[in-house]
Amino acid sequence: MVAEEVESIAKRRGFFWPAAEIYKPIAGFWNWGPLGTRLKGNFLAEWKNIFVRGENAYEIETTDILPEIVWQASGHSEGFNDKQTMCKKCKSRFRADHFIEEFLKGKEKLEGKSCEELTAIIEKEKLRCPKCKGTLSEVFVFNLMFSVGVGPTGEQKAYLKPETTQSSVLDFPNVYRTMRGKLPLKIAQVGRSFRNEISPRNIMLRMREFDMAELQVFFNSEQKEFAGFENISKENIRILPAELRKGKEGKEVEVSIEGALKKGWVPNEITAYYLAKVFTFYLSLGFERKNLRFKELLPEERAHYAKVHWDFEVYTEDFGWVECVNNAWRTDYDLSRHQQFSKQKLTVFEDNKHVLPNMYEPSFGINRTLFLLLVSTYRKDEKRVWFAFPPALAPYSVAVFPLVKKDGVDKKAQEVFDLLSKEGLEVLYDESDSIGRRYARVDEIGIPFAVTVDYQTLEDKAVTVRFRDSTKQERVPIEGLGKFIKSAAKF
Amino acid sequence: MVAEEVESIAKRRGFFWPAAEIYKPIAGFWNWGPLGTRLKGNFLAEWKNIFVRGENAYEIETTDILPEIVWQASGHSEGFNDKQTMCKKCKSRFRADHFIEEFLKGKEKLEGKSCEELTAIIEKEKLRCPKCKGTLSEVFVFNLMFSVGVGPTGEQKAYLKPETTQSSVLDFPNVYRTMRGKLPLKIAQVGRSFRNEISPRNIMLRMREFDMAELQVFFNSEQKEFAGFENISKENIRILPAELRKGKEGKEVEVSIEGALKKGWVPNEITAYYLAKVFTFYLSLGFERKNLRFKELLPEERAHYAKVHWDFEVYTEDFGWVECVNNAWRTDYDLSRHQQFSKQKLTVFEDNKHVLPNMYEPSFGINRTLFLLLVSTYRKDEKRVWFAFPPALAPYSVAVFPLVKKDGVDKKAQEVFDLLSKEGLEVLYDESDSIGRRYARVDEIGIPFAVTVDYQTLEDKAVTVRFRDSTKQERVPIEGLGKFIKSAAKF
Repeated sequence: MVAEEVESIAKRRGFFWPAAEIYKPIAGFWNWGPLGTRLKGNFLAEWKNIFVRGENAYEIETTDILPEIVWQASGHSEGFNDKQTMCKKCKSRFRADHFIEEFLKGKEKLEGKSCEELTAIIEKEKLRCPKCKGTLSEVFVFNLMFSVGVGPTGEQKAYLKPETTQSSVLDFPNVYRTMRGKLPLKIAQVGRSFRNEISPRNIMLRMREFDMAELQVFFNSEQKEFAGFENISKENIRILPAELRKGKEGKEVEVSIEGALKKGWVPNEITAYYLAKVFTFYLSLGFERKNLRFKELLPEERAHYAKVHWDFEVYTEDFGWVECVNNAWRTDYDLSRHQQFSKQKLTVFEDNKHVLPNMYEPSFGINRTLFLLLVSTYRKDEKRVWFAFPPALAPYSVAVFPLVKKDGVDKKAQEVFDLLSKEGLEVLYDESDSIGRRYARVDEIGIPFAVTVDYQTLEDKAVTVRFRDSTKQERVPIEGLGKFIKSAAKF
Repeated sequence: MVAEEVESIAKRRGFFWPAAEIYKPIAGFWNWGPLGTRLKGNFLAEWKNIFVRGENAYEIETTDILPEIVWQASGHSEGFNDKQTMCKKCKSRFRADHFIEEFLKGKEKLEGKSCEELTAIIEKEKLRCPKCKGTLSEVFVFNLMFSVGVGPTGEQKAYLKPETTQSSVLDFPNVYRTMRGKLPLKIAQVGRSFRNEISPRNIMLRMREFDMAELQVFFNSEQKEFAGFENISKENIRILPAELRKGKEGKEVEVSIEGALKKGWVPNEITAYYLAKVFTFYLSLGFERKNLRFKELLPEERAHYAKVHWDFEVYTEDFGWVECVNNAWRTDYDLSRHQQFSKQKLTVFEDNKHVLPNMYEPSFGINRTLFLLLVSTYRKDEKRVWFAFPPALAPYSVAVFPLVKKDGVDKKAQEVFDLLSKEGLEVLYDESDSIGRRYARVDEIGIPFAVTVDYQTLEDKAVTVRFRDSTKQERVPIEGLGKFIKSAAKF
């Protein structure tokens, strides 16, 4: 599996590793090492450029702990559940739908099935505990939120947020007021989420603590036009609408945004606009078009809050299609529930009307995206391995090597390092082992360019630039080297 | 109180507000609004420039939930406590030292006093519950960590981290190995901390969820020299060493780094180096020299892990001296405890020796720093209020106003907005109300420059730049306006 090779490089070179690894770590908790932190930082810079700055969104930062009433209002106290079954003998627990799906080898999709239905399948198929062959309990619901007791006796019941969305909804009135806002008003947030997953797995695909990057767009649902739509209406995306699924998987089709809207697959301009934005963004991250699609969820698969719900999925051979961005038209569900529970008026007054805004959100899983990016850009031939990151995402933009550590070559290389750093590039300096070993090391962490300073440099004031993907080399004058790299990197 | 005026502006204009404000919020939880998020982002960019990039530190990102054994090893399970007393009648709880200090009006410092000693004072002074006059219980210890149960039955006991430090310590072996490190090795981290404070107060000074920016420096304590020391040895800082405190407050003195070292007030070059770095950094943020000092903690005040412990404090009239940066030489305490509890060897092999590194950390409280920055840079005269932020920290670098919304003046202003944005400046566009009202609005959020586009602009291709602090105005050609502002801002 590619994923295993990626995991091994990640741990060996410093992209990520399990939290508290020197102890027996708890499953589902991962830390970003120095390279992963750089990768994540670069990803977020791109994301903010498109989805905060590019959308004129207001970014906020919010707490992870929120009082219980927030989750009662949002529906999470009741609805944010896994359906589980427990072995009566060894007490192991399993997520019932996943467990049965694995047994049935994907013959049937079980999302949305009730506890009774799942229990019936377990009994009909005579399923037993895979660990000890014990009999399994009836299927029951288990809430995935982590509870936290605040105050000296823990008397103020609260939860770690399982999604960042609610903070944007709760803060909508404050943002609207303080920013002298108008609909559509956009709130962006990068934040952490916590879920007590019963079986964390697939490295960063199912974690108990993870980061999200989200845009919540509050709009008046009576307005059919959405500003910016005309700029993206001709773009093509790959989608699998509910209509083409007919209960089974189905095959995604390529269609223009306009076309998707005309066919009625996408209900409105705002949804269409953000589907296009998300699709284009993932192309820019280095994913291949054929490995990207939107899958519309069937009514029984949708979250409790969603009227329209599209999973944006990334395909890899290792994991099949995996959701990376949740795209949901949540109507006025969240605001109306909080209005009801808080007894505060959350409408805004525009065009002589009180409006309770609708909300649309694209919600990006950062860990999933970056882990699948590593898997998707991993390359291997008989000689070497490398990550084909776009230069803007690579942990370093360029590496600088002195051919030897003497005769002024190292001093000159240090000068080149300083020069490139000053021009705002993130530069790695490496002077140990052979040049071949150094190339292999920087390939393995996806650095797109490597600059070698040699004896000739002292004469001709030029260096050798070697390109990661092609391994081709080119002699480039030091004067203008920064520009050359920025232009090759398309910065 | 200035702090109250600052809080009012913060809530009205979008710097910060209580989390979940539409409900009855739980005390000690604050969200950053759009302006606060910008302020924090700018602060972190400066911090990373100095303490990550400038120190060649490796930045990591880590989980907030860590297993119980980590906290048993670190000493937090046992030692991270408040001493509390409870009213026997109304069950209210109080932090005993604060409660008694307030009663005694600062006559005696109580940090480090035992439960028995505090109980004795309560009995001697016949202190009663301030809420209901009930009698108070004996003083007892209360652990400030939030516990979290992970797994289906919560069987894996874990805690939300009360400090980010431990993650750097736990990940030290991984960073050292993956980065092919050498001592001194520096790990940087920006992350969240959680503490179940009994009485959150003073807005952002005592919170239950807050952010830290930290640098952990792992070094060989046998090496007396610290690289970079020579560059800062002549700098002056203001310090109050234990020697000058003699049990009482004492008065800080101004001394050169070299001098502090010679007098024995500072034990080694690494401590001296970071005291200088922290002091200079806070000056660059816009705090006044006279309001900054390092206070050495007395043995009974020090954290359980610290051999040398200096609080870096900021003075404001409202709050007196408040700790903003914890500066501690933690020896090899953390690593040796984790070595013992994990039974893993955490030494490194350098110069033919196995070394268990010492650790020194400056640990920055982000919320305290930014809140005290707001309080410290708040200005008021008979006509207006403003924040005298350094331009690099201001939520926007420059505002652009069209004098009128017609005759092409607004179109030209939009062009100026686009031009400045393209040059990488963060620009606010505002076209409503009179120019005077607009100046007042941007002063109130600390924007250092305001550009007005008027009828004359259409003729002379120049604009009026107005300076926040002096309110002086200057006519500047549009060509070169970006450069003019960057140079005035010292970008």
